[in-house]
Amino acid sequence: MRTVTPDNITEVFQSYFGPDTDPRFREVIGSLATHLHAFTREVGLTHDEWRKALEALEWAAKITTPERNEFVLLSDVMGLSSLVDMINSRQGATSSSVLGPFHVSDAPPMEIGDDMRGDFDDEVLLVEGQVRDADGNPVPGAEIDIWQTAPNGLYSSQDPDQDIMSFHGLMTADENGRYAFTTVRPVSYTVPTDGPVGEILNAAGRHPWRPSHLHFIVKAQGFRDLVTEVFPADDPYLDQDTVFGVRSDLVMTYKPQPAGSFPDGFALSGKVDGPFARVDFDFTLVRN
Amino acid sequence: MRTVTPDNITEVFQSYFGPDTDPRFREVIGSLATHLHAFTREVGLTHDEWRKALEALEWAAKITTPERNEFVLLSDVMGLSSLVDMINSRQGATSSSVLGPFHVSDAPPMEIGDDMRGDFDDEVLLVEGQVRDADGNPVPGAEIDIWQTAPNGLYSSQDPDQDIMSFHGLMTADENGRYAFTTVRPVSYTVPTDGPVGEILNAAGRHPWRPSHLHFIVKAQGFRDLVTEVFPADDPYLDQDTVFGVRSDLVMTYKPQPAGSFPDGFALSGKVDGPFARVDFDFTLVRN
Repeated sequence: MRTVTPDNITEVFQSYFGPDTDPRFREVIGSLATHLHAFTREVGLTHDEWRKALEALEWAAKITTPERNEFVLLSDVMGLSSLVDMINSRQGATSSSVLGPFHVSDAPPMEIGDDMRGDFDDEVLLVEGQVRDADGNPVPGAEIDIWQTAPNGLYSSQDPDQDIMSFHGLMTADENGRYAFTTVRPVSYTVPTDGPVGEILNAAGRHPWRPSHLHFIVKAQGFRDLVTEVFPADDPYLDQDTVFGVRSDLVMTYKPQPAGSFPDGFALSGKVDGPFARVDFDFTLVRN
Repeated sequence: MRTVTPDNITEVFQSYFGPDTDPRFREVIGSLATHLHAFTREVGLTHDEWRKALEALEWAAKITTPERNEFVLLSDVMGLSSLVDMINSRQGATSSSVLGPFHVSDAPPMEIGDDMRGDFDDEVLLVEGQVRDADGNPVPGAEIDIWQTAPNGLYSSQDPDQDIMSFHGLMTADENGRYAFTTVRPVSYTVPTDGPVGEILNAAGRHPWRPSHLHFIVKAQGFRDLVTEVFPADDPYLDQDTVFGVRSDLVMTYKPQPAGSFPDGFALSGKVDGPFARVDFDFTLVRN
């Protein structure tokens, strides 16, 4: 008979696959088992450590809801979500980055130049840019889904004082691929720390902060969807995003603008007297 | 600034650890991240596959209860539980094997020679043996915790028709380390297949069967606890245990005994007229 040993268990695992197993399933599960076995052997995982890992998963199970998914957060802080984003990014396109849990379906339509600030009257941030293809040609009529934190650091779904569609909007770029809107600066925030992920971060001596960012999903017919985030260059957490979302091409700069220089063509035109900030961010899509 | 890439994300992950992190925590979590990142890159995990993995964890979360832990089962069928058992086994001791979810605390005490069959009148199996140290000397008074399936393939906690202590017992070996009891043959059974683990086994073309086995925990003062299982040599699933629990030194042989040969010194002595089976299994403990 065959005896299972630490040295042959991976081989035995592979031998269990049936002959009709989908080759991709076999590749993925076989590789996962190979790497998990290698990890277990490499560190000499103890029964106590194994039990703690299982307890962390059970705790994650208890607190996971449709609005708060601790398993996704675990994948995020382990760098897995970001790695999946990166290896599925397309050459020549703007980098993709974590979707995160705060996207809403059916965001309210916005006209080019509309304002997202709602009841918040913090300093205006004017965001504009162009959607282009890999050759630099404009992509007319691209659909741009935009969301961000309010100035209090909360997404609408985390904040009973905000409408669920607060700081969410869906804009169609013009015939030159251009988009523009006004908003406020998004702010840095922490991922939830009251579950097992918080304990892991704490034990690792890691902070739970994400640098502030604007979320975008950019879609256009014939092009691959782009899910991404854009980060200001001066954010203190830029080099230490706890979910590993920052890429160099996703960094933007807020340019301070003097009082009295607010342009025409915006919902806020004529209403902004003081200084404001301006940022230009272009997206590159690649064809399907 | 530093940009995160598929090639440096593991290094970035390691750089996030704080200076005061417990070295063992850092070793385990650092190695886990390294291997999960390598897996993700190696197979080029897609967003769809990542989402399916997250959905499997959420499904496991939904069906996990104190009596049915799908995360433990996932670890079992991936070979992780068994690998942890093996790498923590001590040289010179009887191999350890999966504890499983069916152990109960405070099993009822049994005298040497007692019978476990309860209301089941299947053919008698006489189990006996000796607990020894690594030099072959008897370990007097070792405590032996025993449990198994009923002939219907169910453990007591799975079967409303059985008392919760049915086929569970706690025996103290004699001054020569000897133990003996009568029972019925345990039977092969399937792990639960109505959750994500069942789907994974099905997609992998794997069966959900475990070879039949007797469970033992053997403890003695000054020795390391032994958690193990013992399997009959003629079980059809011996080479294909779906949780990888079989080791060559854990295989036993049922020896058929003729009618009229049942020995003295047992609770059933004088009550067994027909043929019965006999098995001898010795345990070796190593000192702490």
